[in-house]
Amino acid sequence: MNVLPPSNRKSLAALSAAMPEGILLTAEADMAPYSRDWSGDHYGRPLAVARPRTVEEVSTLMKICFREGIPVVPQGGLTGLVGAAVAAPQGGEVVISLERLNKLRSISGIDFAMVVEAGCILEEAKNFAEAHDCVLPITFGAQGSCRIGGNVATNAGGFNVLRYGMTRDLVLGLEVVLGDGRVWNGLKVLRKDNRGYDLKQLFIGSEGTLGIITAAAFKLFPRATQVETALVGLRSVEDAMALYARARRECSDLLTAFELILRGGIDIALNAGTGLTDPLTAPYPVYVLIEASAGGRVDLKAILEDFLGDAGDIVVDGVVASSKAQAERLWLLRETMVETQGGGGRYLRTDVSVPISKLADFVTDALAALAHHHPEALAVTYGHVGDGNVHLNIVPPHNSTPDAIEDLFHATETIIFDVVDRYGGSISAEHGIGRVKQKAFLDRVDKVTLDIAGRLKDAFDPKHILSDGRILGAHSRIGV
Amino acid sequence: MNVLPPSNRKSLAALSAAMPEGILLTAEADMAPYSRDWSGDHYGRPLAVARPRTVEEVSTLMKICFREGIPVVPQGGLTGLVGAAVAAPQGGEVVISLERLNKLRSISGIDFAMVVEAGCILEEAKNFAEAHDCVLPITFGAQGSCRIGGNVATNAGGFNVLRYGMTRDLVLGLEVVLGDGRVWNGLKVLRKDNRGYDLKQLFIGSEGTLGIITAAAFKLFPRATQVETALVGLRSVEDAMALYARARRECSDLLTAFELILRGGIDIALNAGTGLTDPLTAPYPVYVLIEASAGGRVDLKAILEDFLGDAGDIVVDGVVASSKAQAERLWLLRETMVETQGGGGRYLRTDVSVPISKLADFVTDALAALAHHHPEALAVTYGHVGDGNVHLNIVPPHNSTPDAIEDLFHATETIIFDVVDRYGGSISAEHGIGRVKQKAFLDRVDKVTLDIAGRLKDAFDPKHILSDGRILGAHSRIGV
Repeated sequence: MNVLPPSNRKSLAALSAAMPEGILLTAEADMAPYSRDWSGDHYGRPLAVARPRTVEEVSTLMKICFREGIPVVPQGGLTGLVGAAVAAPQGGEVVISLERLNKLRSISGIDFAMVVEAGCILEEAKNFAEAHDCVLPITFGAQGSCRIGGNVATNAGGFNVLRYGMTRDLVLGLEVVLGDGRVWNGLKVLRKDNRGYDLKQLFIGSEGTLGIITAAAFKLFPRATQVETALVGLRSVEDAMALYARARRECSDLLTAFELILRGGIDIALNAGTGLTDPLTAPYPVYVLIEASAGGRVDLKAILEDFLGDAGDIVVDGVVASSKAQAERLWLLRETMVETQGGGGRYLRTDVSVPISKLADFVTDALAALAHHHPEALAVTYGHVGDGNVHLNIVPPHNSTPDAIEDLFHATETIIFDVVDRYGGSISAEHGIGRVKQKAFLDRVDKVTLDIAGRLKDAFDPKHILSDGRILGAHSRIGV
Repeated sequence: MNVLPPSNRKSLAALSAAMPEGILLTAEADMAPYSRDWSGDHYGRPLAVARPRTVEEVSTLMKICFREGIPVVPQGGLTGLVGAAVAAPQGGEVVISLERLNKLRSISGIDFAMVVEAGCILEEAKNFAEAHDCVLPITFGAQGSCRIGGNVATNAGGFNVLRYGMTRDLVLGLEVVLGDGRVWNGLKVLRKDNRGYDLKQLFIGSEGTLGIITAAAFKLFPRATQVETALVGLRSVEDAMALYARARRECSDLLTAFELILRGGIDIALNAGTGLTDPLTAPYPVYVLIEASAGGRVDLKAILEDFLGDAGDIVVDGVVASSKAQAERLWLLRETMVETQGGGGRYLRTDVSVPISKLADFVTDALAALAHHHPEALAVTYGHVGDGNVHLNIVPPHNSTPDAIEDLFHATETIIFDVVDRYGGSISAEHGIGRVKQKAFLDRVDKVTLDIAGRLKDAFDPKHILSDGRILGAHSRIGV
C-alpha cells in the first residue's frame, strides 16, 4: 500500500470536501479500469478518478484543481493508443472520466446537426443520427468503445475521411471547461459563423492539454440508402493509387472508404481460425477494399460495377458484394486482420501519412528497408490510402525476450519514420502525440512551431495542470 | 498636404532604409488604390503602402515593424466589405499589400492539392485547378478581384459551402509571417496530420490580426463534368427550406448551390435595363436557384429533373437549364440583382445566419418588423439558404439625406440583428467583423469568449501592431 506524500493528501482532501458523494474514486480496485488503456500497453496510477455527471461538476472540479495546482487528465474511452489519457507514470494526476456526461442532447434532420455530450460512446451517437435518417460519418474499429470527447480531443480519423474529412471538419460547436474551471459555451449548430476567431479549433486535436471538452455539436449528412462494397486484387501499391485517382473521378466522389491491405494482412485474417475464406480465386500482392455510399436517385451499384469493369487494365480480380452479409464478410477480413495481427502479443503500431502521390514509394521503400535490416520481423501494412495514411505495424518473432522486443520496436520505428521524413510525411496521421510519440515529435518539430504551441499552452493552461507532458514536454514553458 | 508627426517620420525612415527600391509607396496618388475598399464605403489613409514580392521581404518588413512598433494592416483584394483591410481612420498604419506574392507554386491532380501565394486572384487559382482537371470550390461574386490571402484570412464562404464547407475546410496548410517577422512554415499537402496543435486554424478567419498569410495549400476535388442548373418558383420561404431538406437527400448530396431570392430581387434584376427576361411564366413570392455538379458516371440531369418532377407539392413552376448559356442567364439574374440593388447609391449590407430550421421564421419575422417600422425602406433578401445564411439588405428611399441614410441603416440593422439574436444566429456569417461589425460583435460576445480571444491576441501580437482594432477593440489587452 502506497503512502501518499502530504501534497497529494492535501489535494485529495480539497477535492473530497468540494465534490458530492460518489464522484471521486480513490480505492486501487475502483481505479483499475481507468488506469490502463485498451491496448494494455499504457498504464498510470491516478491519484484519484473523478466521474462528474454534469458540466457544472466538471467546472467545480477544475476550479479546485486550478486553485490548488492539482494536475488532471481528462479521459474518454481509452482507445487513443498514444498514452494521452492515462495518468502520468510518476503519479499525482487526477483522472477526470467523462463517461457519465453521456446525454444525447438534441438532433435535427433539417439542420443536419446534433449535440451530444463528451461521454457518449461514438456508436451510440451514430445510432442516434441514424434514427433520424442522418449519418455522423466518424467510423473506425473502436467506435463501440471510444467516446465523443476523445474523438474531438484527438481529431479522430477513420475510414470515411476521404469523403467527409477528419472529426475537426464535422464539429460545428463545442462546450469546454477551461483550465481555471470557467465554462466556454461555444455550442451552436450554425453552418456559417465568422464572428471573430473560431475558438473551438483550439481544443479540437489538443489531446486534453488546453481544456476539457464536455459536449460537441456535429454536422450530419443524409443517411445513405445505398452502400456498395467491393474487394479487388491488384499487382502493386502503385496500381492501388492509380485506381484511387480514377475512382474519385468516375464514382462522382461518392467513395466512403478506400482501404489498402497487402497480401500478408489477408493471410493473417484467413489464418485466424475464424472460418474466413479468400473471396477471390487466387492470391494477389495488394488488395483494396472499396466502399461507395449514397442516398437518393443514383444507381450506385451500376456506377461501381461499370467503373471496375472498365478498369481491367488495373484490376486483376475483384468482387462486388451482392448482399449486405457479403459486404460484412469483406469488412470482416480487415477487422480480423487488425484484431489478430499481433498473435496475442505486443506489436509496434505506426500511423503515418505522406502525400497521396508518394504513398506507393513510401510503402516500397519502408518495406525494403525493414526487410533488409530486420528480416526476422513481420511487417503488416494496411491503411486509409485515400488519405495517404498507412498503418505499418511490426510483429516481433515468437518467443522474443521483452528487451529484444523493445530493441526491435525502436529500430524499426526509426527506419519507418526516416522514410516518412524523406517523403515530407507525418509520424502521426490519426492518433496524435500523447506520450508515446512525444520524443519523435519533439525531435522533428521546428522552433517556430514549438514556440507557437508553447504560447498557446501558456495562455490557456498557465499552471500546466491540464494533461501536462502530453504533446509538449512536461512543464514546458516555451513561450516568450 | 499633411505634415507627419515625428514618430511617423521615424517609422518611414526605418522602413525606407531596410527595404529595396520600389517596395514602399508613400505618395498620396500612388496609395489611393490601396486606401478605399471595393464598396467605396471604407477608407483609411495609410502611412505608406508596402508591396513585398517574396515571403522574405514580408519577413524583413515585419521585423522592422515589430522592432519599431509600427502598426500594419495586411491587404488583399479589398472586397471583404467590413473595413478590415483598409488603414485605420486615425492614420499611422502601413498597408502591406500581398498583390505581388502571386505565384501559383504547385499542383497535383493525384494529391488533389495545390499551393498558391496569398496575392493570387481567386479566379486565377481556380483556373489553375481547372487546367489540372480539379476544382477549388470557393465560388462567389468577387472571385475576379479577391485574393487568396484574404479568402483564408476571412474564412470566405460563397455558393458552394453547402457541399464543400467554408475556406477553412479546404485549407491543408499555410505559410505565415508572424508579428515579429519570423516565418511559420505550415505548408503541407497531407490529408491527415495529427502532430500536435493544428496551428493553421489560428490564422484562418483571424482577419490579419494574428499573422500575415503568405501562401496556402488547398484541398481540391475532381472537376465536375456535369453541371445542372434550375430556377424554381415557390409559395414561401418555408417551402424553400422543405425543398432543400428533400433535395439534399434525393440528389445524393450532389448540390453545389441552393440560393434563395425573394421576388423583389428578381424584379430588381428584370428592371436593371440589361435585357433580362423572366424565365418563368408568372411571378412567384420566392425563388430558388439550384445547382448540382458531378463528375463521373451519374446521370445528373435525370436526377435533378426527376427530383423536381416529384416535388410538385412544393414546386409551383420551374425550369432546368437546357444549355450552358441558359444556365448562365439564370445565374445572371442573381448577379444583376446583387450588382444593381443599391441603384447606384449606398445600401446597408447584412450577412447573417441562423440554424437552417429557423431560417423561414427569421425571414418572416425580420421582414415583418422592417415593414412595420420602416415601410419606406426597400428590403432585398437573398442568400445561401443551404447554410442558413441570408443577406438582408436595406435600400434607402431616393433622395434621402446622408444623415437620414445613416439613421435608417442604424435602425434597420438593429431590427435585423435583434431577430438574429432571438433565433440564436450570427450577425456575421461570411464577411467577418473587421471594423464595421465590431460594435455589434462586442455588444453580444460573452466574457469568456472575449477573454480567450484576448489571450490569443496578446500571445501572438504582444505589441498589438497587426491589424489592431479589427475584431477586438484597439489595444485591447483583455487577457490575464
